[in-house]
Amino acid sequence: MASTILSRRDLSFMLYEWLDAEALNKRPRFQDHNRETFDAALDTAEQLATDLFAPHNKKADQHEPHVGDGGQVRIIPEVKTALDAFSAAGLMAAGQDYERGGMQLPVVVEKALAAYFTAANVATSAYTFLTMSNANTLLKCGTPQQMRRFVDPMLAGRFFGTMCLSEPQAGSSLSDITTRAVPDPQPGPEGERQFRLTGNKMWISAGEHELAENIVHLVLAKIPGPDGKLIPGVKGISLFIVPKYLVDDDGAIGARNDVALAGLNHKMGNRGTTNCLLNFGEHGGAIGYLVGNAHQGLANMFHMMNEARIGVGLGAAVLGYTGYLHALDYARNRPQGRHPAQKDPAQPQLAIIEHTDVRRMLLAQKAYVEGGLGLVLYSARLVDEQQSAETPEAREHAGRLLDFLTPITKSWPSQWCVEANSLAIQVHGGYGYTREYNVEQFYRDNRLNAIHEGTHGIHGLDLLGRKVAMQDGALFKAFGAELSKTVRKVRGSVARPGAVPHADAGIEAIGAELLSHADALDAAWQAVEQVTQKLYAVGDMNKTLANASLYLEAVGHVVVAWIWLQQALLAARALDGGDHDFYRGKLQACRYFFRWELPKVEPQLELLASIDTTTLDMRDAWF
Amino acid sequence: MASTILSRRDLSFMLYEWLDAEALNKRPRFQDHNRETFDAALDTAEQLATDLFAPHNKKADQHEPHVGDGGQVRIIPEVKTALDAFSAAGLMAAGQDYERGGMQLPVVVEKALAAYFTAANVATSAYTFLTMSNANTLLKCGTPQQMRRFVDPMLAGRFFGTMCLSEPQAGSSLSDITTRAVPDPQPGPEGERQFRLTGNKMWISAGEHELAENIVHLVLAKIPGPDGKLIPGVKGISLFIVPKYLVDDDGAIGARNDVALAGLNHKMGNRGTTNCLLNFGEHGGAIGYLVGNAHQGLANMFHMMNEARIGVGLGAAVLGYTGYLHALDYARNRPQGRHPAQKDPAQPQLAIIEHTDVRRMLLAQKAYVEGGLGLVLYSARLVDEQQSAETPEAREHAGRLLDFLTPITKSWPSQWCVEANSLAIQVHGGYGYTREYNVEQFYRDNRLNAIHEGTHGIHGLDLLGRKVAMQDGALFKAFGAELSKTVRKVRGSVARPGAVPHADAGIEAIGAELLSHADALDAAWQAVEQVTQKLYAVGDMNKTLANASLYLEAVGHVVVAWIWLQQALLAARALDGGDHDFYRGKLQACRYFFRWELPKVEPQLELLASIDTTTLDMRDAWF
Repeated sequence: MASTILSRRDLSFMLYEWLDAEALNKRPRFQDHNRETFDAALDTAEQLATDLFAPHNKKADQHEPHVGDGGQVRIIPEVKTALDAFSAAGLMAAGQDYERGGMQLPVVVEKALAAYFTAANVATSAYTFLTMSNANTLLKCGTPQQMRRFVDPMLAGRFFGTMCLSEPQAGSSLSDITTRAVPDPQPGPEGERQFRLTGNKMWISAGEHELAENIVHLVLAKIPGPDGKLIPGVKGISLFIVPKYLVDDDGAIGARNDVALAGLNHKMGNRGTTNCLLNFGEHGGAIGYLVGNAHQGLANMFHMMNEARIGVGLGAAVLGYTGYLHALDYARNRPQGRHPAQKDPAQPQLAIIEHTDVRRMLLAQKAYVEGGLGLVLYSARLVDEQQSAETPEAREHAGRLLDFLTPITKSWPSQWCVEANSLAIQVHGGYGYTREYNVEQFYRDNRLNAIHEGTHGIHGLDLLGRKVAMQDGALFKAFGAELSKTVRKVRGSVARPGAVPHADAGIEAIGAELLSHADALDAAWQAVEQVTQKLYAVGDMNKTLANASLYLEAVGHVVVAWIWLQQALLAARALDGGDHDFYRGKLQACRYFFRWELPKVEPQLELLASIDTTTLDMRDAWF
Repeated sequence: MASTILSRRDLSFMLYEWLDAEALNKRPRFQDHNRETFDAALDTAEQLATDLFAPHNKKADQHEPHVGDGGQVRIIPEVKTALDAFSAAGLMAAGQDYERGGMQLPVVVEKALAAYFTAANVATSAYTFLTMSNANTLLKCGTPQQMRRFVDPMLAGRFFGTMCLSEPQAGSSLSDITTRAVPDPQPGPEGERQFRLTGNKMWISAGEHELAENIVHLVLAKIPGPDGKLIPGVKGISLFIVPKYLVDDDGAIGARNDVALAGLNHKMGNRGTTNCLLNFGEHGGAIGYLVGNAHQGLANMFHMMNEARIGVGLGAAVLGYTGYLHALDYARNRPQGRHPAQKDPAQPQLAIIEHTDVRRMLLAQKAYVEGGLGLVLYSARLVDEQQSAETPEAREHAGRLLDFLTPITKSWPSQWCVEANSLAIQVHGGYGYTREYNVEQFYRDNRLNAIHEGTHGIHGLDLLGRKVAMQDGALFKAFGAELSKTVRKVRGSVARPGAVPHADAGIEAIGAELLSHADALDAAWQAVEQVTQKLYAVGDMNKTLANASLYLEAVGHVVVAWIWLQQALLAARALDGGDHDFYRGKLQACRYFFRWELPKVEPQLELLASIDTTTLDMRDAWF
């Protein structure tokens, strides 16, 4: 039976046929790598995900972490077994330098590995990604001592990490945090300056557990001014390492720090990941170490934000993906009903995949999840370009594309791959609504992704209010140029006779069809350009930004249409080379996206162009 | 604090200002009633729902029914307390004849009462609605003895009822059921002919519990022919009463019947309602009594289908409604962030309702849930018209409208009010994703509604494949005439100077705005007519019906736009009479629906008109 975690065939298509991951091997950092080493890493990930992560996905959901009698957080043992195997395989450092014990894998491959673990078990794999994000942040702006005492144990899987940003009164509005960090007269290990932190942090995933020897909290806090007052706004924020257990000069685990679990949150999904309210400094102040410069905490923390947001988009896409594969498997095996035109009840029932409406639901899922995963891996590939492309211009261009796409890469899968999960339930009928099957959990797990790492609404503001305007529109133009390049490529391919091969009677239409897709995409982007200009010509930012979420959704659909057109062009070219069904599937999903999905953008752009103030004008009293 | 279950103000608006429930009091059946008696019943429902149903909604979700040591199903005691109070208040028979102990309330009022219980606690209230549906079915085609022995105890709340349709191999395809009913040589009580039933029934809500003295199962089964074989298809289906405990001639509870609980299903939501796999006849055959004529079981069962489907739509709408009220309450009380143009962090944070994107999410919810509830109550009002309108023509017209609207009344709220629940979570941010708050449960509970009582896809086929074509298009035309009537009413009102009052500077635009809504609605319906013609001109039912779900969604949005325009016209007329904010809210929600929602229909109708075969052409091997 084919895996219901992910499609390896599709992953290979994306990595090698489309995103040309092998081209990275020409760069010094990746020179030891080739398709074989990438595949070996993927094999490991697939194996571990299948053997150790997927099997306890439901069990962890049904037996969520709880506080035991001794005050310790209890987690089912399968979680630690899986995480230990993940660390033992060296995966915690998959992308890191050799000198840090890493494998120097490109980000795009690292994300493909992550795809397996997240699809198999989002809750257990969260511990690894939080640790890797934490380590990456410290690698950007930590001291060599901090690397040795905290990063290296995290990369070895001995310590796990967290991100402590939110507080009960400050979620989306980080400028309102009130956690205080006061300089401690006593020096820390290796003479490092110490601070004492007091405050409450909310929504801390992996904030407490016994899965690792230590937990390295990265904490946003404010250093009070000489008057003892906190500086309002983000300017007052600094970043600190606050370990659960202090770490001595020689790296040995020392005393318990002043960080206490105040309570566990109980979520609708993602139940296997502890999510905590943590109290810092109830007994004199938790010891912390400043990371980077004071008052630059938010900037330092946000170094890892592009990657963290790609991570959220990835999670959303692959939860949708595994749901799709489960639904596909069910639809092929569940007999129910007959064709409308042939209802003879004496005949056996059909597998439900034979019903057009079931195929619609499967095709929609395919379009969402392969489109979403494509967008995520494309973005990951941009991180590689940004970090290691040959020229400064190429690196800058990749950075612009990445910054522009990030709010979409985070938000689009978080919206549409949850819809895919809903369709996966629908394909299963009543069975899918029960916890005896897997798809309802994917739906619950995935619903988180539009909320954390910046809500949907905040990414709308980020895209329209920041990214579009940044560098005098350079990000926006960089993306437009990239989209136009694809359009030209399609037009060029189809114009050349014979460039698109003909494999069967239906294929001859594909050239014309791709051309019509390219025209539609071109027109949609021109409409986006016009709407964007109009929105910025209003001269009142409240009006410009009033419908930013809709803008995010409209541009998101155009972006994913572009992702699909790239995949379809490759598929059309490859049709004759074997694996015909796979490529026909790609072409049909692309057709679905252009016929069923892209047209949804038109009324959205019209509404935006009308500078609609329906929501802006609404008053509290009228609700 | 305002109730977060339902808005009584809105319910009054719908019942009295819009649907003119008081007009029913002129009819003989309802002559003892008036607004005061309706309001008294609503008061009772609101009180009981608030005091006894809502308080254990979360607890029942967290402590779902389970099979105890003695094999009995254990349910938290609050459920029985609430249900006993419901029965004691006479609500089980609210719509029934006086001679059956009923109150002879109209269906539209009965559904308004149901709205309170379902919004407060869908799982507990399910026991009542199943019992009432069961009783209604028997009242249509049962014998007087069956009424006395089974219906009267159900209407008194002493017995509860179920509907046993599905089997493990036959869910949507009822023609494939294999439960057998063989005539029993022994006569039953009062000399009634008995049958012995054997088979397995799946998804039986309220199939086993100790909440009532007895459970009256209504079971679809097949009487074998002389050769012992079952007749394939629906023609072989008959309907039977199979009680959990046999009932003697004098109505006393007798021996346990041969019906056994084979297992409980564990759902994502609706956890408080037991949902069972039942085995009939493991020990010689469960005793059953034929209801109505043999081989007409499906037709007899479907007598209650319009009402059951309105019930599902109602459940979906009010789960959305209560979620909206919870989100509204949260948004008014949660401080977070500041306006984009005024970000001074030294200023206090705003209540999040001040953020335009939060208002968008609240306004969308309002548009979905008040539109959905409006559609449901309009349909319930049609049942009253169908049953008691003065002329046969009026009753026939109401029946046509009802039949046409039923798939939409069932499906539209099941799609869009789940979306409202998703937005309610989003308004709450991370808090909404936790089980410490209420909205995540509404989202889980509501997701069932697109699945049961006919899936979304099946209602698409029902609308496009049956209802549209029925009686040579008479149902379709009846609805079109009703829609045109509203359009003309708006045009007539706005044309008459002064007909739409002017209360403040903004109001003068409302006349023009309603007119533009009427034009948009008119155009949308004409487009639906053209598309429908095109679809039927294809001459290949597989193509005609391929995209029936999309047709259902498009027509559904047009129907709800029409519901909103009716409400808005009344609101515009009432603006000067006090309660200004309430009516402004109605107008703004209508504006939202016409600007943000109705335009979504255009690309859907274009796709349908193109006779798109993307999903039809998709092949299994391409997935």
